[in-house]
Amino acid sequence: MSILVVGSIALDSVETPFGKVENSPGGSALHFSAAASLFAPVNLVGVVGEDFNLSLIDFLKEREVDLSGLMIEKGETFRWGGRYHQNMIQRDTLYTYLNVFENFQPVIPDKFQKSKYIFLANIDPELQLQVLENIDSPVLTILDTMNFWISGKRTALEEVINRTDIIILNDDEIRELTSEYNIHIAAKKLLKEGPKVLIIKKGEHGAILVSENDYFATTAYPVDKVVDPTGAGDSFAGGFVGYLASCQKLSQKNYREAVVYGSVVASYNVEAFSFSRLKEIDRKKIDDRFSKFREMTNF
Amino acid sequence: MSILVVGSIALDSVETPFGKVENSPGGSALHFSAAASLFAPVNLVGVVGEDFNLSLIDFLKEREVDLSGLMIEKGETFRWGGRYHQNMIQRDTLYTYLNVFENFQPVIPDKFQKSKYIFLANIDPELQLQVLENIDSPVLTILDTMNFWISGKRTALEEVINRTDIIILNDDEIRELTSEYNIHIAAKKLLKEGPKVLIIKKGEHGAILVSENDYFATTAYPVDKVVDPTGAGDSFAGGFVGYLASCQKLSQKNYREAVVYGSVVASYNVEAFSFSRLKEIDRKKIDDRFSKFREMTNF
Repeated sequence: MSILVVGSIALDSVETPFGKVENSPGGSALHFSAAASLFAPVNLVGVVGEDFNLSLIDFLKEREVDLSGLMIEKGETFRWGGRYHQNMIQRDTLYTYLNVFENFQPVIPDKFQKSKYIFLANIDPELQLQVLENIDSPVLTILDTMNFWISGKRTALEEVINRTDIIILNDDEIRELTSEYNIHIAAKKLLKEGPKVLIIKKGEHGAILVSENDYFATTAYPVDKVVDPTGAGDSFAGGFVGYLASCQKLSQKNYREAVVYGSVVASYNVEAFSFSRLKEIDRKKIDDRFSKFREMTNF
Repeated sequence: MSILVVGSIALDSVETPFGKVENSPGGSALHFSAAASLFAPVNLVGVVGEDFNLSLIDFLKEREVDLSGLMIEKGETFRWGGRYHQNMIQRDTLYTYLNVFENFQPVIPDKFQKSKYIFLANIDPELQLQVLENIDSPVLTILDTMNFWISGKRTALEEVINRTDIIILNDDEIRELTSEYNIHIAAKKLLKEGPKVLIIKKGEHGAILVSENDYFATTAYPVDKVVDPTGAGDSFAGGFVGYLASCQKLSQKNYREAVVYGSVVASYNVEAFSFSRLKEIDRKKIDDRFSKFREMTNF
C-alpha cells in the first residue's frame, strides 16, 4: 500500500570528521522517501526553490516515488548547515535558512488523498493537522516530531498526537514531552494520550517499541564507519513505515520486524553523506543485513 | 566449577534521587559474589577493617561463598561516598578513603589455588598479576578494570590483558584503552592484544560480546525504577561469569546466554541500594526475567 509523506526538503551542508558536502539534497521528506521506497510506493509532498536540481532525486522516480506533490516555489530551497563533533552525536547548527519552506502550505494532490499510510515528518504540528484533514481514511498515521515543536507548539502537537496511531521519537524527546526521565515510565504515560504504538529511537543504542500489548527492544546495527548521521532518524522511519506498508497485515511480529528494518536502513544511511548510500542499495542488501542482525542478536 | 574473585570490599555511602544509605556493604568483590553465587560456588579474596560487621554478608555463606580468603586487618574498611545525578549515570565522588585497602596484598588460600574461573575485579593491575601467579591452571581468566588504571598503570595492565581470556569493560574504557572512538573498531584492536572475548558494557543500553568468531549485541533489561546503580557492572560480571561456571561447556550459545544473564542480574542489582535486592532473589527469579528478556528481544 502506498505511503504519503509530508515533510521538509533541504540543501544541507554538512561537515563531519570524515569529510564534508555542500548543498547536498536532504530534509526529512527526502531521507524518508529514499528509505521507504525500498519497500513500498511513496507519495511525496514538499516544497523546493527554483535552485533545486531535480535531477539529483531522479532515482526516487525509478523507485515508485510519486513527486507530483513536489511544489517548486520562487526563491531558494530550505538550507541547513551543520558540523558534527568527533562523537558523531553532538552537532552544531551553523545556519538555518528556511527560505521557501517558511511559508510551506502542504497541498495534497487528489490522487494522494487515498494514501493508506501517512507519515507526518517533522514539520509544524499545525501543518500536520491540515494534512490529516485532507486524508480520506488512512490505515495508519505515523508522527515524527522534535523538541522545537514540543516546547513551541504544544497545544497543536497534542492534538496531532491524539489523532496519531504511531509516534516515532527519540529518548530526549519523549522525556521532554512527558516530563519523565525514565523512558519506560514516559512511554506508559504517552500511550495514554492516544497513540497505539511508540517507537523510541536511541541512535547508536537501538530502538524500543512500546504498545499496550508489546514491548520490544533492539540494538542498532553496528556500523564500522559512520560518515554522516544526518537523516538517520528519517531513514529509520522510512524503513519502519515502508516495511509495514509492504506487509499483508499489522501483526506484532511485523511491527517488531519493522523496527529492525528501520535500524537496518538507518545503518546504511549513515555510511555516506546525504542519501548516496541509500541510492545504491536495494531490497536484497537490506534483507541480507536484516538476517545478519537477527543472527547477531539471537540467543 | 568454582570461581575465585579478588577485589575490593567497601562501606559505601550513596545518595540517589530515590534515597540514601550510609556505610552499606559494597565494593567489587561483594557485588560480584552476591551475583555469581546465584549460579556457582565462589571463593572470595579481599580485605576489610575491624569495623566491618560480618553479619551483613552472612547470606553469602548460605550461597556457597567461601569467605576463608577474607582478611580482617587493623584499621577501617575502604570507604566510598558518592552522589548520583538525576540521570543516574553521572555521579560525584564525595570521598574515597582507601584505609586497609591501601596496602591490600591478596593472599590466595591453598584450597583456592585450584579455582577454575578467575575473576580479577577492578584492583591495581600489579596485584592482578600476583593473583595470576598463584593459580594452578584456570579454565578462564576474566578481567575487569577502569580508567584509573588505564592511565595510571598502563604497562602492568597490558601484561594482565595479555594473560586474560575475557575482558569486561565499558564503552568509555575501551575507547581510552585503544584510543579508538568507534567501539567496533576498538574491539578488533583490543582482541589482538591477547584476550579471546570482550564484553563491552553500555549501562542502560545493554552490552556487546565480541570475539574472533562471534559478535552478539543485546539491550539492557528495562528497569522501571533504578534506585542505585552502584555495583551494576560488578553484578553484571557476576551473572556473566557465574552462568559460564555453571555450564558444562563454553559454547557460543552459552557465552551469549551469559551476557543476558549478566544483564538480568544487573537489572535486579540496581532496583535497591547495596545488594539488598540480590540478597532476596533466587535462581528462579533470574530465570523468569531471562525468559522475559528473550521474549522482548525476539523477532
